[in-house]
Amino acid sequence: MPSARVDPRDAVFEALDTFARRHIGPADAESAAMCAAVGVGSLDGLVAKTVPDNITIANPTRLGPGLSESELLAEVKRIAAMNKVYRSYIGMGYSGTITPPVILRNIMENPGWYTQYTPYQPEISQGRLESLINYQTMVQELTGLDIANASLLDEATAAAEAMLICYSQANRKKDVFFVDHNCLPQTIACVKTRAQGFGINVVVGDFETFDFAAHKGKVAGALIQYPSQFGEVSNYEAFVKRAHDNGALVACATDLLALALLKPPGEFGVDIALGNSQRFGVPLGYGGPHAAFFAVKDALKRRMPGRLIGVSKDATGKPAYRLALQTREQHIRREKATSNICTAQALLANMAAMYAVYHGPDGIRAIAQRVHNLTAILARAISSLGHSVANSAFFDTLKIATAGPAAAVVAAALEKKINLRKIDDAHVGITLDETVTKQDLEDLVAVFAATSPKPAAAAAVLATAAEGISAETPAAAFGANAARTSKYLTHPVFNSYHSETEMLRYITMLMNKDLSLANAMIPLGSCTMKLNATTEMIPVTLPEFGNIHPFVPLDQAEGYKTLIKELEYGIAQATGFDYVSMQPNSGAQGEYTGLRVIKAYLESIGQGHRDVCLIPVSAHGTNPASAAMCGMTVVTVKCDDAGNLDLDDLRAKSEKHKDRLAATMITYPSTYGVFEAGIKEACAIIHANGGQVYMDGANLNAQLGLCKPAEIGADVCHLNNHKTLAIPHGGGGPGMGPIGVKSHLGPFLPGHPVVPTGGSKAIGPVSAAPWGSASILPISWAYMKMLGDDGVRKATQVALLNANYMLRRLEKHYPILYTNKDGFCAHEFIIDCRPFDATSHVQAIDIAKRLHDYGFHSPTMSFPVANTLMIEPTESESKAELDRFCDAMIQIRQEIRDIEEGRQPRDNNVLTNAPHTVDVLIGAEWNRPYSRETAAFPVPSLRRRKFWPTVSRVDDTFGDRNLICSCPPIEDYEQ
Amino acid sequence: MPSARVDPRDAVFEALDTFARRHIGPADAESAAMCAAVGVGSLDGLVAKTVPDNITIANPTRLGPGLSESELLAEVKRIAAMNKVYRSYIGMGYSGTITPPVILRNIMENPGWYTQYTPYQPEISQGRLESLINYQTMVQELTGLDIANASLLDEATAAAEAMLICYSQANRKKDVFFVDHNCLPQTIACVKTRAQGFGINVVVGDFETFDFAAHKGKVAGALIQYPSQFGEVSNYEAFVKRAHDNGALVACATDLLALALLKPPGEFGVDIALGNSQRFGVPLGYGGPHAAFFAVKDALKRRMPGRLIGVSKDATGKPAYRLALQTREQHIRREKATSNICTAQALLANMAAMYAVYHGPDGIRAIAQRVHNLTAILARAISSLGHSVANSAFFDTLKIATAGPAAAVVAAALEKKINLRKIDDAHVGITLDETVTKQDLEDLVAVFAATSPKPAAAAAVLATAAEGISAETPAAAFGANAARTSKYLTHPVFNSYHSETEMLRYITMLMNKDLSLANAMIPLGSCTMKLNATTEMIPVTLPEFGNIHPFVPLDQAEGYKTLIKELEYGIAQATGFDYVSMQPNSGAQGEYTGLRVIKAYLESIGQGHRDVCLIPVSAHGTNPASAAMCGMTVVTVKCDDAGNLDLDDLRAKSEKHKDRLAATMITYPSTYGVFEAGIKEACAIIHANGGQVYMDGANLNAQLGLCKPAEIGADVCHLNNHKTLAIPHGGGGPGMGPIGVKSHLGPFLPGHPVVPTGGSKAIGPVSAAPWGSASILPISWAYMKMLGDDGVRKATQVALLNANYMLRRLEKHYPILYTNKDGFCAHEFIIDCRPFDATSHVQAIDIAKRLHDYGFHSPTMSFPVANTLMIEPTESESKAELDRFCDAMIQIRQEIRDIEEGRQPRDNNVLTNAPHTVDVLIGAEWNRPYSRETAAFPVPSLRRRKFWPTVSRVDDTFGDRNLICSCPPIEDYEQ
Repeated sequence: MPSARVDPRDAVFEALDTFARRHIGPADAESAAMCAAVGVGSLDGLVAKTVPDNITIANPTRLGPGLSESELLAEVKRIAAMNKVYRSYIGMGYSGTITPPVILRNIMENPGWYTQYTPYQPEISQGRLESLINYQTMVQELTGLDIANASLLDEATAAAEAMLICYSQANRKKDVFFVDHNCLPQTIACVKTRAQGFGINVVVGDFETFDFAAHKGKVAGALIQYPSQFGEVSNYEAFVKRAHDNGALVACATDLLALALLKPPGEFGVDIALGNSQRFGVPLGYGGPHAAFFAVKDALKRRMPGRLIGVSKDATGKPAYRLALQTREQHIRREKATSNICTAQALLANMAAMYAVYHGPDGIRAIAQRVHNLTAILARAISSLGHSVANSAFFDTLKIATAGPAAAVVAAALEKKINLRKIDDAHVGITLDETVTKQDLEDLVAVFAATSPKPAAAAAVLATAAEGISAETPAAAFGANAARTSKYLTHPVFNSYHSETEMLRYITMLMNKDLSLANAMIPLGSCTMKLNATTEMIPVTLPEFGNIHPFVPLDQAEGYKTLIKELEYGIAQATGFDYVSMQPNSGAQGEYTGLRVIKAYLESIGQGHRDVCLIPVSAHGTNPASAAMCGMTVVTVKCDDAGNLDLDDLRAKSEKHKDRLAATMITYPSTYGVFEAGIKEACAIIHANGGQVYMDGANLNAQLGLCKPAEIGADVCHLNNHKTLAIPHGGGGPGMGPIGVKSHLGPFLPGHPVVPTGGSKAIGPVSAAPWGSASILPISWAYMKMLGDDGVRKATQVALLNANYMLRRLEKHYPILYTNKDGFCAHEFIIDCRPFDATSHVQAIDIAKRLHDYGFHSPTMSFPVANTLMIEPTESESKAELDRFCDAMIQIRQEIRDIEEGRQPRDNNVLTNAPHTVDVLIGAEWNRPYSRETAAFPVPSLRRRKFWPTVSRVDDTFGDRNLICSCPPIEDYEQ
Repeated sequence: MPSARVDPRDAVFEALDTFARRHIGPADAESAAMCAAVGVGSLDGLVAKTVPDNITIANPTRLGPGLSESELLAEVKRIAAMNKVYRSYIGMGYSGTITPPVILRNIMENPGWYTQYTPYQPEISQGRLESLINYQTMVQELTGLDIANASLLDEATAAAEAMLICYSQANRKKDVFFVDHNCLPQTIACVKTRAQGFGINVVVGDFETFDFAAHKGKVAGALIQYPSQFGEVSNYEAFVKRAHDNGALVACATDLLALALLKPPGEFGVDIALGNSQRFGVPLGYGGPHAAFFAVKDALKRRMPGRLIGVSKDATGKPAYRLALQTREQHIRREKATSNICTAQALLANMAAMYAVYHGPDGIRAIAQRVHNLTAILARAISSLGHSVANSAFFDTLKIATAGPAAAVVAAALEKKINLRKIDDAHVGITLDETVTKQDLEDLVAVFAATSPKPAAAAAVLATAAEGISAETPAAAFGANAARTSKYLTHPVFNSYHSETEMLRYITMLMNKDLSLANAMIPLGSCTMKLNATTEMIPVTLPEFGNIHPFVPLDQAEGYKTLIKELEYGIAQATGFDYVSMQPNSGAQGEYTGLRVIKAYLESIGQGHRDVCLIPVSAHGTNPASAAMCGMTVVTVKCDDAGNLDLDDLRAKSEKHKDRLAATMITYPSTYGVFEAGIKEACAIIHANGGQVYMDGANLNAQLGLCKPAEIGADVCHLNNHKTLAIPHGGGGPGMGPIGVKSHLGPFLPGHPVVPTGGSKAIGPVSAAPWGSASILPISWAYMKMLGDDGVRKATQVALLNANYMLRRLEKHYPILYTNKDGFCAHEFIIDCRPFDATSHVQAIDIAKRLHDYGFHSPTMSFPVANTLMIEPTESESKAELDRFCDAMIQIRQEIRDIEEGRQPRDNNVLTNAPHTVDVLIGAEWNRPYSRETAAFPVPSLRRRKFWPTVSRVDDTFGDRNLICSCPPIEDYEQ
């Protein structure tokens, strides 16, 4: 299918492995038939019926004709080769690691794991829920704290979240947060950024001398780093006591590997521990994605942000995992929020957990010990060469006072393709990791020998330095008091799967409990579970992208630079914006960043007092939360009965608040799944009243190639790369939430304290790494490169077609909420389940769970309207799969009718009892008013292909009431 | 776990990602406990009890200390970089191809596919059986023949198999086989090699002029190539008629892609079609592994060698796939055999089938058309430059009469990193493929322009040449008569999965029906299903190994050369032999090669008359078949009651045949799973009587590091790399069967007509490619490199330990056949099921199928003794898994006792009805004398982890009686 833009004489030469027809489900003939079924003559005809005339694209996108899959792979190889993979000993929160190949291939490169959705449906998600509870257990035990969550976005934002726990725990009455100056610079900067919206005063100082009393009871909390950014292993016990005595909580940023040898923070009293679990097998990836860990004392557990996995029981009383305390997340406290976090880094958390499962406590300890011992040897070697080690106690990081200028040492290292950290003119930093070999050490010693006042042969220096240090015991250069004595990773799960065979089977067993895109469609409204193509995924695990530290000199990351620039260009083309920031690493983070940028802009034009944010009632919960985090006051705007933004209300409120109006946040197409006709007018109203328009990009998948946010009137918009640009969902992360802005906002795009980035008047960083989760950007880049202009447009058209095709089939059977005046939806639509309550007691959740029996993931439940199901098929689903799903829904409608018409009882039927596990179905007892076969195989095709839920309906209330968030004793399963 | 050989001062620096502890299942503490359970003090103590003193190793292996996994990956990257990946247009049976990434990642790199065993147990193998039947259907339809098998080893040996069908169809009464001189040179050479053992006279000539009459009815068959090795698309209709008129069959070597446009062989009357399906998505891989296809007319179907998948029904009447006509393979016709083929190239056949499923008929036709059209354009362009195209009709290959010397053109191409085929001093060959881009064509034209009498700009020449050739229609430079008019790939399976999402789900659905090592142990005696580690597999799909044509100049394959040399060294070290040949690409092929080498040696010393081969009754069926194929007479040697070779009988028969004694074939440890104490004596007897000792390497996994075949007395031995050196089984191939020989046999190791290899007096080639399936050799290389001396020895010790541990647990419950005098087995042991017939009617197959209900693959059934089960755990299984399996067997013993003691009827119990599918278990009717739960969950752990069979017991007789070997109509499944 050569693009129309190709010279027709070249058609005969065109590659055939084009991407669009692989990405898009329906073949052309099918899509024509579907158009007919929908009642339009063509895809363009469909667009005419769904997208308002006044917003159709003004400037066509210029992405080019689209590369074939093999062309893309050749191009990405060329770009990857522009990255220079040096050995990096920069540290600062990122370390080299060995990803166990069995984890690399069978999790990171396996669609059975990376295409999973967030485990909101526990009955078909027990595998990753178990893995994430392993993660929580690992974090809890290594940190010595009571309870851990299933990961946050990165260490720096985790620190910001810790600050906000302290702040809310103090009922927002204490506004000082102390940060030790030896915390990581990006952490300090992110904490400061986040503090601004709340008016928190971040005081950076020395923990040894910080005077709590001077702040008169106003200190909400403190942040320390253990070991510090320069490697120092300090004794924080006295400090923690002082903080507590002064009514402040203490958060400790730390390092899981170090904690294998060091006394854990929980044992010296800290309230919160956090950090990056990257070095547990997750590639550096130029800064991410990595899972940040987060653990708290029991008393703080209900304040903990992010996802928490808990153990509950199912309808048969069997233990079952689930997302605990979902209300914390799902119903974010909107205007009162201190956090807007939704996604986690599930895929990376799973990798880190599996790393611990594979190595076990002995393996983890051995790795920690080796890293530490090599660091001790290196310290001796460097000292013997006339430089001096500034640390009094260390684990894996040295601060070296260089004999000559630090720059000379750094330069000598670069000569050998080694990156050191230049701390200042007189100091360099070195952080070792598990990848370091003897040769690496020799090369390092040679660097210091070459810059030494008394040069010597590196090998000999190293040999001397190694004398008396044994592989069998830790060198304990962190001091005797700091040594860990408590056990960790004691659960059988960390002590059973140490051969590759066992590990592979454990990974496979868990995977097979989880429904992913490799099994069936996941028709989640607002979540856009489209294809994550293999060709897009291949670049991610190339070593040239994986093995780059985020703080390497920029000339070593030319490949990344090129790719990021091209992706920025692509996003700008597709959205119409002038500038793009890749820093926010989730959609919610993008919202926050966008609003902060608006705020900074308003301040720059003397409108800093503007603080009202208008948000429709239909908005995602993150919208008001983000606004609140920026110090804005949220004012709600109504919707009319058809689900459209009430323009009169918008106008009235805009005018009412016109002196304080800062922004509005609008999702487009709306969260109700409709291209509202009044969108341009809405933007004009806001602008007329001095506000900026923030467009929520959650539904951008329906716009690409058809219209552009910037042309519609938005000043800023975020993209969810996993929704719009094919980054896999990963079972609940990674995400990326870049924002596009118009030129007036460009100067304010976020900066970074270590790597220069962002605008000329940049706001502080919002992520730990300068370009967020850089190593997954090749996915989105490849997606746009391969689709090209025609493919991007067609993908969007087919997304609309698939939704409208399903709508047409299902509207005969179910009430549909909100279509446009012609009866068309955008890329998703809502089935109203509320009427069934009266007729049959059936709720949306019953239909959702019954869909599991048909082998499907359920649609989005009760968002944006309670007791509804929102269906979004995406363009990647084939007609056959859409029909299979519709057939299931229609059959379920019949099952509801059986209840309505009295053939089945209201309290004991295939819906209320769904989902049905094999366990239940072959139980000796069967006294239900329907047959086992009706439960299991309501349609015949299920006999050939069926995904089985592994637990019965999970009891949410029980789980929240009896909160257990670490691995349960193995006997619980053997009963 | 640093090796003892490492300098102790270096211990602190040693890498921790060592391989042995990942490869070997039991941890050290477990293995100590297991030793105690077995009744020995240590692994060495166990060896003392199992391996006879007089054969323990004389010269320790010198493999070195073993690389860590990351060291290995670094090393393999270095070696891969020594290969130069040029563009190759050499053709000759191998073409560039684009492996669809979804197939690469989810089949070729997926342990769920590559660790499967041959599908002898159809109830847990329906996925790959379906895929292989897709393969058969594809071959059948593209070739236009009636029935196709599930692949052979390579095109050249497939041609040899075709010759032998002709020969046996003529009842061995016709001894002439005609081969057209335009067949591929390696094919002609392999056919000649194979002909020798049967005394067949291979006549190479021109099909147009070959005079059947001159051979007086002695012509059994003929082989032609379509298109020919030089690309000519000849009309063979008249020739086929002449052959048939003269009572000869016709085999046609052909090209599946060409057949998308060309009239298929079946339509011009040929009896057999064969060829290489490599270009359907399987990387070149320096010659293999690839799946050779093979199809015949209906009348020949029961003569067809190799595996044939058929459709049968299961115990409930549902359609089910299975291996058809297994007797052909499993009970090879021994002394009467014309083939010894066992393995197929299942993994590669699955890839090729999936390629067809993904592209569908339209996609395949489009690819063929593009390749053809580009060839037509190239022909015009080259002609316009003053060279001339010698073909009158072509598909994708041109024979060019060069304007100047051919060598100059080849050299000019090499300058541009392009490989052409140098045919002779005046001709070059060019074969295009689907990877060719416009730029590639321009570069090719530039080569011919540079060597042209009338140079011109390549781009312009190309543009002119392309005029009038459209992407929409074939250029049809093969002539109108040769155009295909019939349809192909019409089944829905080839017309449904064209989006990546659908393809991924189809691959996943099939995989989930199949038990692989990713699910549970596969304890197959004699088959050694050990770990196929990820680190071993990573090199296979590196482009530097994948994209090398087997006939490139040797200086482009330095990486392969290095790796093969190192592997040869490793094998020589481990076996004690002086020379190694990597050419045989299966174990049976290795046997054949070894015997041919012995034969050639005997001839060279004037002992060519020696033709008796002594083979114990316990031998694999391939042994006598291989001997027969070498023209040897098989004489059987008895075993005593303890299963040992009867040395008296061996001596008597050796002496009786001492003038004709050529060789003996001995498996060691024996196929009964015992290290026989008399092995050295046996070798001495043979040598004393002028014979050579061929050791069958099927059980070599039990020898490595403990003893060496060459030291024991063998003159030659093959290795099954998938058994001994960790190549995955791939669901029934690929295999590799290199042989080691003592120095006197070295000169006779097989040569190759295209690439110089083998000894100074080399026998003809036995495989199409000079080093067999070269691209999987990195697996075995990595295995040995990472284990090193200590690891190899320990792996073998633990293989013995695991077997003896299971023996100890099970001997209390089951009768065991054959242990040594101390009651120890080697690496496997046999459970005797024969007594159960009398007590309960239970047969070995009932136990095997019942094991499926416990989530296990069954052990080897009825080999080497009927109605027994042979169990081989391998070193890779953990103690937990061994115990899980033993627990299942013990529970099954209890189930047998329930029958024996009358609590369950003999004809309707959990064993006779096994395996139980979900379908059966949740059926409305349940009137069996045991509960559904007893059937499904006989042990509680199955509720947490269970692999489910997807069909009930398959009816073998029905399937063989109603032979259906292509995709059944879809309605069959929907009933």
